[in-house]
This record gives sequence, C-alpha cells and structure tokens, in this order.
Amino acid sequence: LPYFTEWVKEVFHVDLERRNPTDESLPTVFPQCNVPEEFLNDLEKLKLPYSVEGIARLVRSHGQTLNDIYSLKLKKTLSRIPDIVVWPENHEAVVKLVELANKCHIVLIPFGGGTSVSGAVTCPENEQRCICSLDTSQMNGILWLDKNDLLVCCQCGIVGQDLELYLQKEGFTTGHEPDSYEFSTIGGWVATRASGMKKNIYGNIEDLLVNVKMVTPQGVLHKQGLNPRQSTGPDFNHIILGSEGSLGVVTEVVLKIRPLPAFRKYGSIVFPYFEAGVACMREVARRRCQPASIRLMDNEQFKFGQALRPKVSGCIPQLSEAIKKAYLTKIRGFNLNYVCVATLLFEGDKKTVESQEETIYSIAKECGGIPAGEKNGERGYMLTFVIAYIRDLGLEFNVVAESFETSVPWKNTLTLCRNVKYVVGKKCKEYGISYYLISHRVTQTYDCGCC
Amino acid sequence: LPYFTEWVKEVFHVDLERRNPTDESLPTVFPQCNVPEEFLNDLEKLKLPYSVEGIARLVRSHGQTLNDIYSLKLKKTLSRIPDIVVWPENHEAVVKLVELANKCHIVLIPFGGGTSVSGAVTCPENEQRCICSLDTSQMNGILWLDKNDLLVCCQCGIVGQDLELYLQKEGFTTGHEPDSYEFSTIGGWVATRASGMKKNIYGNIEDLLVNVKMVTPQGVLHKQGLNPRQSTGPDFNHIILGSEGSLGVVTEVVLKIRPLPAFRKYGSIVFPYFEAGVACMREVARRRCQPASIRLMDNEQFKFGQALRPKVSGCIPQLSEAIKKAYLTKIRGFNLNYVCVATLLFEGDKKTVESQEETIYSIAKECGGIPAGEKNGERGYMLTFVIAYIRDLGLEFNVVAESFETSVPWKNTLTLCRNVKYVVGKKCKEYGISYYLISHRVTQTYDCGCC
Repeated sequence: LPYFTEWVKEVFHVDLERRNPTDESLPTVFPQCNVPEEFLNDLEKLKLPYSVEGIARLVRSHGQTLNDIYSLKLKKTLSRIPDIVVWPENHEAVVKLVELANKCHIVLIPFGGGTSVSGAVTCPENEQRCICSLDTSQMNGILWLDKNDLLVCCQCGIVGQDLELYLQKEGFTTGHEPDSYEFSTIGGWVATRASGMKKNIYGNIEDLLVNVKMVTPQGVLHKQGLNPRQSTGPDFNHIILGSEGSLGVVTEVVLKIRPLPAFRKYGSIVFPYFEAGVACMREVARRRCQPASIRLMDNEQFKFGQALRPKVSGCIPQLSEAIKKAYLTKIRGFNLNYVCVATLLFEGDKKTVESQEETIYSIAKECGGIPAGEKNGERGYMLTFVIAYIRDLGLEFNVVAESFETSVPWKNTLTLCRNVKYVVGKKCKEYGISYYLISHRVTQTYDCGCC
Repeated sequence: LPYFTEWVKEVFHVDLERRNPTDESLPTVFPQCNVPEEFLNDLEKLKLPYSVEGIARLVRSHGQTLNDIYSLKLKKTLSRIPDIVVWPENHEAVVKLVELANKCHIVLIPFGGGTSVSGAVTCPENEQRCICSLDTSQMNGILWLDKNDLLVCCQCGIVGQDLELYLQKEGFTTGHEPDSYEFSTIGGWVATRASGMKKNIYGNIEDLLVNVKMVTPQGVLHKQGLNPRQSTGPDFNHIILGSEGSLGVVTEVVLKIRPLPAFRKYGSIVFPYFEAGVACMREVARRRCQPASIRLMDNEQFKFGQALRPKVSGCIPQLSEAIKKAYLTKIRGFNLNYVCVATLLFEGDKKTVESQEETIYSIAKECGGIPAGEKNGERGYMLTFVIAYIRDLGLEFNVVAESFETSVPWKNTLTLCRNVKYVVGKKCKEYGISYYLISHRVTQTYDCGCC
C-alpha cells in the first residue's frame, strides 16, 4: 500500500520506523477469581461446562472499543474481569444457569462474538459479587428453516457469517450485514439492536426479528406463535431489542430470510462538496428509492480510501487515474480537497437494479454529482471491513482512532457534522494533539433523518 | 339496491316487511353517577370542563362492537357507564387531570373517536370507583408541520379525516387509512396499534410513529428528539402502541408524512377459487411487490359485493355484465359459486404504478387469475366503508353481524379459513340458526403471513 504510507506520514507525521515493540505473548497474571462454592457445586451437578482459567476470563472481559484494545495491548489485562466462564449448550441450560445465578447472587454477563462497543460486556470495576460470563458460542445451531414462510430459527450463538453461509447454500439470505458480521452473533444482533448495511432492502434487526426467547430471572419472555403482525400491544420484542444483556439472555431467535438476489452491482458518485452529497442522500430518501446501500464519505474519508488503493503496475492504470482526476478537476471544476463520494450497492433482479440506477444517477445529477464507477463503489465497501484492522495497526505507531455513531434529523445533519468537527478539533488542540483527522460519513438514510 | 334486497332474502330469508320499529328518541334514564366531591372541586379549581349529564356519559360508554350497538338499540343504555366526562384541552391539562385522578382514586378511560372494537372504552360492570371518561375531542390541533423532514405533530384528538384534509391541502398525506378513519383519532390509532389499508406504501401506525407523549400516573413517558432510529433499547414507543389507554393517555403524536402520490388507480383480479387467490397473494408478498393495497375476498363476499351494485338503467350495462359473466363461466370455465376476487389500489408516480400493474397481473396469471377491471376494484374498497352502516341496518331486521381479525403465517392461512368456517357453522347449527353467512378475506400481506 504505497499510497497509504505516504498518506499516513503526511496526515499524522508518523515515523514508520518507530513501531512500538509488539509483545504477542499471552498474559500470565490475572485478577483473582472469587466464585462461591455453592455455585461451583451446582454447575457440576447440572453438568454445565465452566472454567476459571485466567485467559478464558480475560478474553471475555472486553469488547472492541479503543479503550478495550489499548488496555489489553499495553497493560495486558483489565482491572476487573469475570470470575468464571460458563458455556451452556441450549435454551434449557440457560434457564438453569439463570436460576442458579439468581439463587447464588451471581452477576451474569452474556458474551457472544465479543465485538461489543457499547460497554455491555465490560465488568463494572467496583462489582463485589461474583461475575459469570455466559459464553454463547456452544449455542450455534440452526433449529429449523421454513422456505415457504421465509423464516429461520437459530440459537443465539451462531456467528453471522456462519448463518449466512448456511442460508446461501439453500438459496437464501438474512441480508443483515452489520460491520461486525464476520464475528458477531445473532443473539448479539438482537441484544444490541443492530443495524445492517443493506437495511434498505432487508431492514434492520428490528424489522427482521419475528420471534425471540429471552431468559430472565423472572422467567422466560417469549411470545407464542409466528404471527406476521399483532394489533395488540405492548410489543415486548422491542424491550428485548437493544437491552444489551441487561434484562436477560437471548437464547433463540427467529429471523426473516429472503431469496438470494439475482443481481448485485456496485456504484459510486462524486460530488463537488459534502453539502451536495447530503442533498442527494436526502432526495433519495424522500423518494424512497434507496438501493440496498448508499453511503456518503466526506473529503477526508475519500482521501483515506484513495490512499488505501493498491499500486497497480504498468502505466495504463496510472494514466486512467490521471485522466479521471483531470476530468474531475479540469473539466468539471471539482476541487479534490472538497469532493466527496457516495458508494452504492444495488441488489435485486436486473430490471429493478437498472431502474434504481437510472433514478439514483438522475437525482445525483440534479445535485451536481457524477457517476464514478463500480470500482470506487466496491472499494468503499471494503473500506468498512478494513478499517477495524487498520485501527489496531495504528496503535502500534501511537495513532489512536475511534468512531461514533448517531442518528439525526435531515435538517440538522450538516450542523451536526460541522459542530462535531469543531468540538473534536478544539479538544485536540487543548490536549496538544497536533496531527489529527476528523471525518464523517452518512451511512444510512431514513424517512426523517440519517445515520 | 335491487340486487341487494334479493340477495338478503335469499341468504338470510329476511322478510323485509318486518322491520323492527326504530325508536330514535334519546334515552332519559341513566345509571346514577357517583363522583367524589373532592374531584369535582378540584376540576373547578383547575378550570377543566366537565359534565355529569346522563347522555354525555352514555355516549362515551361504548365502542362499536355488535354487543355495544345491540345494547344501545334495544336496551337504550348500558348497565355501567362513566360517572363523569372531562374535556382537557391540551397536554398540560391532561397531566393535571391524571394527577388529580390518581390522588382521588378515579378510573380514567381515554375516549377518542368512539370506534373502539377492543372493549377499551367499556366500563367494567363491577368497578366501584368513580369512572371518568377523558374525552380528547378538544385536543384536535395541529402543532407543527415540517415539510423538509416530512413530519407532522398533532394533538391526540384530531380525527383522521380532518388531519388528512389539512395535509392534502399542503400536498401531503399520512397515508394511514384504518377502516374507521372517518371517525377515529390519531391518539386512538397509536393506542390501538392501528393498521391502515395502504400499509404497503405508508406502513402501519408503528412504522409511521416517530414520537409520542403519554401521560401516566407515574409521569410523562416521552422520548426526547426526533431521531430517525436508535440503536439503543428498549423502545418504549412499542409499549405505548397498543396499550389501549390502560397505561396512560396519549396526548401528542409526531407522524411521518409523504408527498401526495401523483397517480392513483384501482384494479381487480378474478380467481377461479380462493386457494388460487391466496397463492397469488403469497407470491406477491414473497416478491415484495405489493401495491398500496391488495385484498382478497372469498366467494361469499364477492357475491355480497355484487349484490350491492346499483341498478344501472339501459340495456348496455346489463349486456356488458352478461358478457363478462359469460366470459368467466363459458370461456374461462370459472364457476361463479367458487370464484373469488382480489381488489387492488395502486399509488405512486405513473411509471411505478405501470410497472407494479405489470408485475401483479403477471403473477396473477401464473396463479390462474384474470384482470377484472378498475370498476370492480373501486367497488371493493367502497364496500369496506359501507359494511359498518349495513350492519346497523341489518339489526333492524334481526340480522346480526360481526367481524374478527387475526394474522396468520402463510402456511396456515387456508387451514385457518376452513377451520373458522367449520366452527362458526357448527355453532350456528347448535344455536338453531338456520340462515347465516360466513365469509373471509385476506386484507394485508406481510413477509411471513397475512391478515
């Protein structure tokens, strides 16, 4: 990645020779564990597999926030980690475990793929009670598939990628792709009220969820039947969604599935400046003609993405890059320090995709944008999955990175972007940080606002 | 309606000469009211308008179930009615009233358009405490309209039809059309988790609702901000939706609005038998290509609808009816005692509607259905609004009618229809009812089932 190293040097003034020595050895010292005898005895009696080994506990003590990763890399541990890890194998085992924990005054923290960024798996530092990490990895089965009613029922611990692999072999997909989907679990999707990249077609997790079992200390919360809709309320699924493991343990989930799309295509649009891009996103949302995904990156992120492109040998590709650049700057009068890019993903039958393309590019044109090809679109989406790895690499050069997400009404979108940039910049200066990068993007569009 | 009287005689053996004498006079005797002095004094102090008049209380003691209407028509009253009616004028007045009721141990029953069929406005017979009907009719204001973010904020008591009138003048619509929308209120839509006829485009009330204030004895439940989506849970809007006034009083509501559609068109399809119609509905749902509305009536309802058509003078229309009938029976081999009809409503820009028509009619063809024109489609939708009036008329000839609604997974749809028909028929025989009609229809299609 020759462009990337240059970009890093220019933006962060990083000396690439000065990499922190990485210590890949496993930690050997862990906080003591404190598990009541009664709990251990009952686990044995119930034949629930468990471990009090330090490394097993440490691994389940954190998610993927900057703070988590930094603490582990540098300090090799966290001050408070679970006292014990238990691996129930099914819903019934979870029921028993929750009853037991309730009886013994044990804190249960459900642990799925470990990609949490909400602090839900973090052990409170001053928690005096025994903390038990309930690892869902053994509950990774698919219970049934209904090809007629387009439903799949699975255990909470199955990883998104594995479920998808199974479904795709059968000709289906959930279509749910949170950025973490290589690692995150279905139970985690429900507990964190996850949003998926392709929600415009498939919906977010709250739209996909048809039925769910949650085990609480007061009993199992479970709506009978698979009715497509109920006119009665309250809808307790919406209490479970986003409860982050604080109300109970999600054990089984029924999700909608869709037939695999016949056709898939990337696309991208360059806008002269961010405001034009937002105007386009807003209009697309107003007309409700979103493709599977449409995302807008600001200029900083556009440059970052460009820096990540591989060096291609031969002069033709370079020439074509040069021609593209010349077209943008000379003919269209775009300033490369202001342009921003929308990346698009279309899915469906060919006719639908073509009609969507036509509509989107015509709206883009009205907003001053021009199509920038499939390649840039595809690269934009890869970026999403690459970013997390780059952050971890950055740490080794003392570059820290974090992302924040929020949703905002359309009318406040630009103000929010400006204000966040201003405040973060101000804070950086206050803390004497000379080299920093603040970037924003619009990743989802909704009727009355965006993310 | 010459065909209708014939149909009624044939199906119900009704003697149209034997109409029950209707007594249009208002009742004069009402159950006593029992209101604590303290409550009355405080209402005076707070300047909250109220009434203890019998007729005002009676009118707010019932919804529109068969039982409600029958009791009122024949018995002229109900055994338990509210003791007092109060008309708060805004959110703040409701807050005061709820506090007061809580202090004085008064039962509050919110009352909107009075179209409830869930029993939510019915006074429990053995309720000893004072019952106060909270009439929302004075809270019928529109608080603001945001044409950019496509939102409208209104008070709970505005009637659907009035809100729609206002919005349409501004070029917008909520698109929410429950069958009761001539009378029902926005607060009622939220409290009953209403479904709208055109939910395929506009969504049901849970999809339209962006924000809501509910006054409870423990305080006001109100989510700050108008975020398009939140990744945090629980979502308490889904506790309010469908709470039927049992948890609190909905006072202010923010709903999504949409630009008025450029184009609107009816349509209909005749199928040789009900199963073919259901297969078509299922396929339309699988491909997610529903128009604004698609409804399937069974043979009984088809005949009922046909009976309701007006007599047209001249022989040409009759001839054309005869030709249509001949085409269906002779050429297509349809048996008029088995055929069923789907009615369609398309909304959107012309291009979208045309493309939808093409898709729907091609799916219909695969399922053995043939297009049956716009006229039949429009008539089908009018039927929905007419039915309630016909029921009231029927009572005068001792014909009772009631409808039930449920949702069901696709795979159980036909079984449910058959079983309900069987059980109701059996019950009719048990009760010695010789002439009866049982009919079903599919009014909404969802991903994994229908209504």
